[in-house]
Amino acid sequence: MTNLTQDAFLGGKLSVWQPANGYRAGVDPVLLAASVPAKAGDTVLELGCGVGVAAICLATRIAGLKITGVELQVDYADLARRNAAENNVDLTVVESDLASMPTDLRNQSFDHVIANPPYYKDGTKSDNAGRDIARSGDTSLHVWVDIAIKRLKPKGHMTFIQRAERLPDLMAACDTRLGAVTILPIAARSGRPAKLVIVQSQKASRAPAQLLAPLILHDGDKHDGDRESYRSEIRAVLRDAAPLLMQR
Amino acid sequence: MTNLTQDAFLGGKLSVWQPANGYRAGVDPVLLAASVPAKAGDTVLELGCGVGVAAICLATRIAGLKITGVELQVDYADLARRNAAENNVDLTVVESDLASMPTDLRNQSFDHVIANPPYYKDGTKSDNAGRDIARSGDTSLHVWVDIAIKRLKPKGHMTFIQRAERLPDLMAACDTRLGAVTILPIAARSGRPAKLVIVQSQKASRAPAQLLAPLILHDGDKHDGDRESYRSEIRAVLRDAAPLLMQR
Repeated sequence: MTNLTQDAFLGGKLSVWQPANGYRAGVDPVLLAASVPAKAGDTVLELGCGVGVAAICLATRIAGLKITGVELQVDYADLARRNAAENNVDLTVVESDLASMPTDLRNQSFDHVIANPPYYKDGTKSDNAGRDIARSGDTSLHVWVDIAIKRLKPKGHMTFIQRAERLPDLMAACDTRLGAVTILPIAARSGRPAKLVIVQSQKASRAPAQLLAPLILHDGDKHDGDRESYRSEIRAVLRDAAPLLMQR
Repeated sequence: MTNLTQDAFLGGKLSVWQPANGYRAGVDPVLLAASVPAKAGDTVLELGCGVGVAAICLATRIAGLKITGVELQVDYADLARRNAAENNVDLTVVESDLASMPTDLRNQSFDHVIANPPYYKDGTKSDNAGRDIARSGDTSLHVWVDIAIKRLKPKGHMTFIQRAERLPDLMAACDTRLGAVTILPIAARSGRPAKLVIVQSQKASRAPAQLLAPLILHDGDKHDGDRESYRSEIRAVLRDAAPLLMQR
């Protein structure tokens, strides 16, 4: 992994190394981190942490968290450690397949489990091996959710971000061990179908599910050249590490 | 079932008898009927047709459909027949449990299967037996969806309306025999969580799922006394039998 770029997140508060090609972090991990209802002292496990953008954004927004990231790919795990160190964030990175995590990790339970699982279903192939694994994976959403539930404390929160087209799969994976399933659709513009969803849920809760009003990213009906068009609420999340409230 | 009311639907085009107490049809079956992408000559099966409001609205909007309704409760089935006859609509009503429909019905396949399945999970009880069965039922959503899929032709459309809090259960019930899952959230007002969802899907399609922008029922931020506040698009659906497009 020789071609790296160094990219700014949270309005320049963070500077993150990531591969020039392959899976690249965009707004998704920033939105994910913004939506986690964590407080100082909480423990957080990120499944598939990649180069660590979500974990590092979360640590920047909320001081005093104990965050562990699990990442299968060695190069990404190394970058996550480097990114955490260079941004003065305390992040433990474990190189492991999700389905066979080390005993030490399997003996822990967490206040929060977060993930931005691979986006494309098995079978979608790109011309880049790293991106292939990060995007399509070989671990189905059921496995991701099952592992998240197992690693959560009772009343702990699971927070996933995912392409909207996989909402049915993600819902199918949320079994009766979870309650208070809250779905936040995220759309580029008002009136458009959602591109992403954040799904947050609480282990051992019996509260009913909620489908929230969509979070709209951009003002206006269409892209207006190079003009910055993020709505002010979104700018605050992306630039100022503001929280994204899931109770709206 | 001695206490009946006669209620107007579709701006007075329809007059429908229903029990004064117990489950009563509101806007839900009208929205359901408006969202079915049927054309003259198509066959339609409604699971749990109640007093027939959805089926009769659909027959009113689109001429030349062949509609069959299945209803467990004899009193409701009788009212559905009476309502169809009094509104000059051709509707075949079969009294049957969904799980054990007559062989004749099980040998048919349909272009459309529609349903407004019972709303409350098992265990919720009201003080009215008819409403209990219509609302909580003893047939889980998995069974409703499974029967719908079995009765659909390849490329036939399933259209369900359901409380938003049951979206996870409904998604879990939509298995790989269905594709093109399209979710339309329906909210009372802009910015509010969805109260209802219409889920439409196509048998044997491989198209990805879509989470549409919400359909907003009312103008304004809150209820304004007795003032009619339905948005014009919704008024057209409720009063003029306009279609509700699921490709937006």
